[in-house]
Amino acid sequence: MAEGYVIGVDLGGTKLLAGAIDADLSVIHRTNRLVYGLNQDELVQMIADAVDEIRASVGEISAIGFGIPCTFDSRTGMAVQAVNVPLKDIAFGELMADRLNMPVVVDNDANCHTVCESRIGIAQGATDVALLTLGTGIGGGLLLNGQVYRGWIMGGAEMGHMVVEMNGRPCQGNCPNWGCLESVASGSALVREASLAVARQPDTALGHALEEGRELTGPLITELATAGDPVARGAIETIGSALGVGITNLVNIFNPQVVVIGGGVIAAGELLLAPAREVMLERALAPGKDVVRVEAARFGPEAGMIGAGLLARDVLDGKTTGAIENHPR
Amino acid sequence: MAEGYVIGVDLGGTKLLAGAIDADLSVIHRTNRLVYGLNQDELVQMIADAVDEIRASVGEISAIGFGIPCTFDSRTGMAVQAVNVPLKDIAFGELMADRLNMPVVVDNDANCHTVCESRIGIAQGATDVALLTLGTGIGGGLLLNGQVYRGWIMGGAEMGHMVVEMNGRPCQGNCPNWGCLESVASGSALVREASLAVARQPDTALGHALEEGRELTGPLITELATAGDPVARGAIETIGSALGVGITNLVNIFNPQVVVIGGGVIAAGELLLAPAREVMLERALAPGKDVVRVEAARFGPEAGMIGAGLLARDVLDGKTTGAIENHPR
Repeated sequence: MAEGYVIGVDLGGTKLLAGAIDADLSVIHRTNRLVYGLNQDELVQMIADAVDEIRASVGEISAIGFGIPCTFDSRTGMAVQAVNVPLKDIAFGELMADRLNMPVVVDNDANCHTVCESRIGIAQGATDVALLTLGTGIGGGLLLNGQVYRGWIMGGAEMGHMVVEMNGRPCQGNCPNWGCLESVASGSALVREASLAVARQPDTALGHALEEGRELTGPLITELATAGDPVARGAIETIGSALGVGITNLVNIFNPQVVVIGGGVIAAGELLLAPAREVMLERALAPGKDVVRVEAARFGPEAGMIGAGLLARDVLDGKTTGAIENHPR
Repeated sequence: MAEGYVIGVDLGGTKLLAGAIDADLSVIHRTNRLVYGLNQDELVQMIADAVDEIRASVGEISAIGFGIPCTFDSRTGMAVQAVNVPLKDIAFGELMADRLNMPVVVDNDANCHTVCESRIGIAQGATDVALLTLGTGIGGGLLLNGQVYRGWIMGGAEMGHMVVEMNGRPCQGNCPNWGCLESVASGSALVREASLAVARQPDTALGHALEEGRELTGPLITELATAGDPVARGAIETIGSALGVGITNLVNIFNPQVVVIGGGVIAAGELLLAPAREVMLERALAPGKDVVRVEAARFGPEAGMIGAGLLARDVLDGKTTGAIENHPR
């Protein structure tokens, strides 16, 4: 029964999500792990453990797809720049193919999101799609003329590190830049905005929640914003407006049919997207601004995992993925 | 002898350049016109006159290519957004095919630059190229996976209107945006920077030139910078650094093999490119920053005209251009 199963793994800056996916693209076993603070060896070990756990439960697995938040050098298969995870300078796919003894495909995590949303999600049928995943950082994915676009040697689509404020604040993690979209519109930026706002207005639902000992996180902000707290709403609106500047750039650069917003922060839904759309409509050029749809990702937290699984299935089907493929030696 | 000639026309915000191009891609007759301040009817008339002048001199012409600084809607053939020229909301190609009674191909002017530089210029042989033309405004062109990328309906590649300063100054012409790359790194921005600098330091070569009645223009600034004037050099360096932020974004988004800088401002050469490269190397992500070449366009002011001619030749050869094609009714 498990024959033909693949595993999709989505690695983020704070957590890992993995699942076995059948031929109907149903996820039949899931596992997740916190990865924040691990060093490279510990992280590789934890990823292998998560895969082994699923394999032990599901049985035979034919291929595995990884979405990881890195740029690559497709000429060497090396993960080159990893802003929020310690995977720099290793041939991750080769390592995993040997360690797990099965065919492996590795792609940027946001590219995996893009594969999922453009094949079976909100952008299904569209040929030109730009995607941003708003989590700890901001990932980017591109579908251009119907193909995932990864850049000359797979180092592209890093739209989270597009400068929108040339004299802005330093970006986070290993990014050497400042004023990146990630520094003003990520989950980290949301928490920063909310902490500044609640310090000015402590006698609010958000202020009371913090007094009660709750941690200031994106999910808390979203929960209270949805319940009507003006401080939490204001923080999301600030992030949404900054996101709108990023979307303006995507519209002017790509004239996409659909801009998809995914990642944890999209839990805020229209509280985030409405100000983003408003800014984009005010600032972007025609005809791009008038024809683009700006939509929440359909698959939520599992989009990257499912996209990685779709790429693994492509490998099984002998299709060209354009991502990094390795087979066990 | 003239059989098989095509005409290439490059329309900028201030001037028009047109030439007849033979099968060896030699330009055998050139003409240019100032177009600044013309209304739509006057501009269309002037373009038709320029073409007629060349036709009268060269003889039989088989097709004509236009590069114009607009976004388009490929579904209707209409010029939609024209930041620096009054060509909004007309089906320019259809109009010209009828008026001139020959096959016409119309593309964005910077796309034409890109066709020229990637086929026979500095980016020859590269598959992934991002191009910026720095003139009155900033145009953008993209070659991705070996194909000119124009966006879903031909409204893309407007990298001059990528926001790099989200709370920056208003952009120019018909652009509704502010803090665009065009507002900090175009020829207009260069003149603005130099005028601010010379007001602070009037006792310099640039200050003396203005006292002698010379007009403050990009070419004057470049001339004096090349001769060593520190104020003129400083203004070019400021623009070069801002350009470097734009190139950083192109590297992170596209991971291009080559970034080509064209347009009038590139006459400043390394005075402009050296600070731009330095900023990009400091701010962009690996591996993109380490593999990209940042180069001056080879064809200078004629690149757009020649690229438009190359597209016209594609039409004659029955090749798919991806641009807007019209035949006389």
